[in-house]
Amino acid sequence: MISKKMSTYLAGNSMIRAMFEEGKKLKEIYGEDNVFDFSLGNPNIPAPDEVNKAIIDIVQNEDPVKLHGYMSNQGHEDVREIISDSINEKYGTNFSADNLIMTAGAASGLNIILKTILDPGDEVIVFSPYFLEYGSYVKNYDGILVEVDCNCDDFLPDAESLEKAITDKTKAIIINSPHNPTGVVYPEKTIEEIAEVLDKKQRELGKSIYLISDEPYRELVYDDIDVVYISKYYSNSIIVYSYSKSLSLAGERIGYLVIPDEADGSKDIIAAATIANRILGFVNAPSLFQKVIARCVDANVDIEFYDKNRKLLYNGLKEAGLECIFPEGAFYLFVKSPMKDEMEFIEIAKKYNILMVPGSAFSCPGYLRLAYCISTKSIENSIPAFKKLMNEVNNI
Amino acid sequence: MISKKMSTYLAGNSMIRAMFEEGKKLKEIYGEDNVFDFSLGNPNIPAPDEVNKAIIDIVQNEDPVKLHGYMSNQGHEDVREIISDSINEKYGTNFSADNLIMTAGAASGLNIILKTILDPGDEVIVFSPYFLEYGSYVKNYDGILVEVDCNCDDFLPDAESLEKAITDKTKAIIINSPHNPTGVVYPEKTIEEIAEVLDKKQRELGKSIYLISDEPYRELVYDDIDVVYISKYYSNSIIVYSYSKSLSLAGERIGYLVIPDEADGSKDIIAAATIANRILGFVNAPSLFQKVIARCVDANVDIEFYDKNRKLLYNGLKEAGLECIFPEGAFYLFVKSPMKDEMEFIEIAKKYNILMVPGSAFSCPGYLRLAYCISTKSIENSIPAFKKLMNEVNNI
Repeated sequence: MISKKMSTYLAGNSMIRAMFEEGKKLKEIYGEDNVFDFSLGNPNIPAPDEVNKAIIDIVQNEDPVKLHGYMSNQGHEDVREIISDSINEKYGTNFSADNLIMTAGAASGLNIILKTILDPGDEVIVFSPYFLEYGSYVKNYDGILVEVDCNCDDFLPDAESLEKAITDKTKAIIINSPHNPTGVVYPEKTIEEIAEVLDKKQRELGKSIYLISDEPYRELVYDDIDVVYISKYYSNSIIVYSYSKSLSLAGERIGYLVIPDEADGSKDIIAAATIANRILGFVNAPSLFQKVIARCVDANVDIEFYDKNRKLLYNGLKEAGLECIFPEGAFYLFVKSPMKDEMEFIEIAKKYNILMVPGSAFSCPGYLRLAYCISTKSIENSIPAFKKLMNEVNNI
Repeated sequence: MISKKMSTYLAGNSMIRAMFEEGKKLKEIYGEDNVFDFSLGNPNIPAPDEVNKAIIDIVQNEDPVKLHGYMSNQGHEDVREIISDSINEKYGTNFSADNLIMTAGAASGLNIILKTILDPGDEVIVFSPYFLEYGSYVKNYDGILVEVDCNCDDFLPDAESLEKAITDKTKAIIINSPHNPTGVVYPEKTIEEIAEVLDKKQRELGKSIYLISDEPYRELVYDDIDVVYISKYYSNSIIVYSYSKSLSLAGERIGYLVIPDEADGSKDIIAAATIANRILGFVNAPSLFQKVIARCVDANVDIEFYDKNRKLLYNGLKEAGLECIFPEGAFYLFVKSPMKDEMEFIEIAKKYNILMVPGSAFSCPGYLRLAYCISTKSIENSIPAFKKLMNEVNNI
């Protein structure tokens, strides 16, 4: 009854989501604080106060017909202007409202831009580990996902490997910094190297290759680390942004695409992406939340909360004998599995009410992803559980 | 730079939207009340008071972390339960929360269900005139749209023509009642005839054919006309609902899919559609508005407003010498063009600041669609303009 493409998904439904459902059930049995659910990137801190204040103010004071009605598929123009002004001020760019398309979050933005540029058989390069849904998004438009492995010492893309992977079918590269699942932030040097390779290959192949930067974690960085703005390094850049994490609005589906004037075919891409927004069924990003963003454009969630969790969990895991790199951004730890088969380790961990996502869900087996966007109390309570778990595993 | 599929759209970008942009410009020049913009189905009456009250109450009283965070891709379970209870009470059906998937409006619901069931080359039958975007949605999944002409006397589907159009590649039929662009409501007899043909052809061909009912106008009917619930007549029914018109929330993108237990492969379809919701980039329907719907499930916009506009415009056009059927639902008049080429008539009408959509935008040339979901004052002011327009046209 269902399509062949969808049948393959039914068989291997997202492990992350399966964990989410499992976690829900365990919590019903053992209580919220006694299940250590590191499985889902669902922010555990509320949106900043400004958000709910903005919602109430907008609903009380704006014309309800215009507020809840259709607008241009690209999104409210005044909202796009406020956001582009804010980006320009922060990063010294030169965008206008016309360069932005409001989207229903980053998953929407990625689908829209891939629908816009991909012909069947076009290749899209990602660096593993990577968010596995990139593969689904690319497959939606009959593109081919090409994986390039990162070095597991620092999880940074390697320019030489990228160069080797580029063919005359390469249409785009997707990068993600701050990075899910590793928490790594790409330094300027990495972006420069990627840009250099892409510029060279573009000339060599006589075609445009787009660098798509998926940036839902841009605001979630620690110790004043810089997240460079890629359009300043490479002209065929496309930025996919989401407020899911920066404003804890994951369920509301709000974000935007930036298509700079410097990108080849910029005007056509903006026009086609606006149509793609409509015909894929998004039509437009939710209206009320577009207007909320305009009023909260410089608001941010409490990064101190995540920072505290980061250090607490990192140190606790180290004490328990687990290894991982210290993340500079996002809210994930990417931990080396103490057992060769990380699925086996994850199964044993469930006995201690610890839920984690296998590295294989990011095309990087032998690792575990722990999302520390949960309550600090849960993290504190989890450390003794991790120690017991490691005790059992070490004695197998 | 953009894909071949999208290039075809760039060339022929939606006429309706082009009109929308044109209307905006004219209004800036001549003022809101002096432009008679019948082009877009964007409700001109506010959402019922309950909606904004619900928003404020939810924001003030619900846990902000749960309110704005991710939930199951299918949508909040309590919301789905409230909606299914409401449908059951109104129509004597027997749905549970499990039969519903919350979606970002009907355009989203249609994309999700087509992604779920269509293999490349599968055929989807529509009755012209029809909402042309159905063609884009079907093409998104490499399906083939098959048009069956309605009789232009009553614009009702003809069972015999449907039967002839069904092949072993037919996967689904899309119907839409109350109907855009004609305002026709399918009587029970029409649904019975369609169901009979489909049942017969299913047996004959040994395959499942789904009847997809696109119902954004279900609540917008006049004179106590009944809109039958199709799942009671045909077991392979799938219902696509939206609150865009019934609650004037077009810009907020909220609706749902119903996949009844009786549909072949129901469980797989629900599971696959839930995944499709995620991988197409919707992830989930906007969270706050799901919760708003739960509190406003039986609210409705002021139908009297539309009814008044309907009669006013219908009678005014008749006086001006134009012909159309009297609509029983939705907020459109489908008017016979007094000139053979309706595009020529539309161009002349612009001189009188009258904006209409050509029938060819619904695969039915020789007609005009007028959306009367605009202010009553605009309609009143438009009648003399129509008379002048007809005077000019009659003297050509």
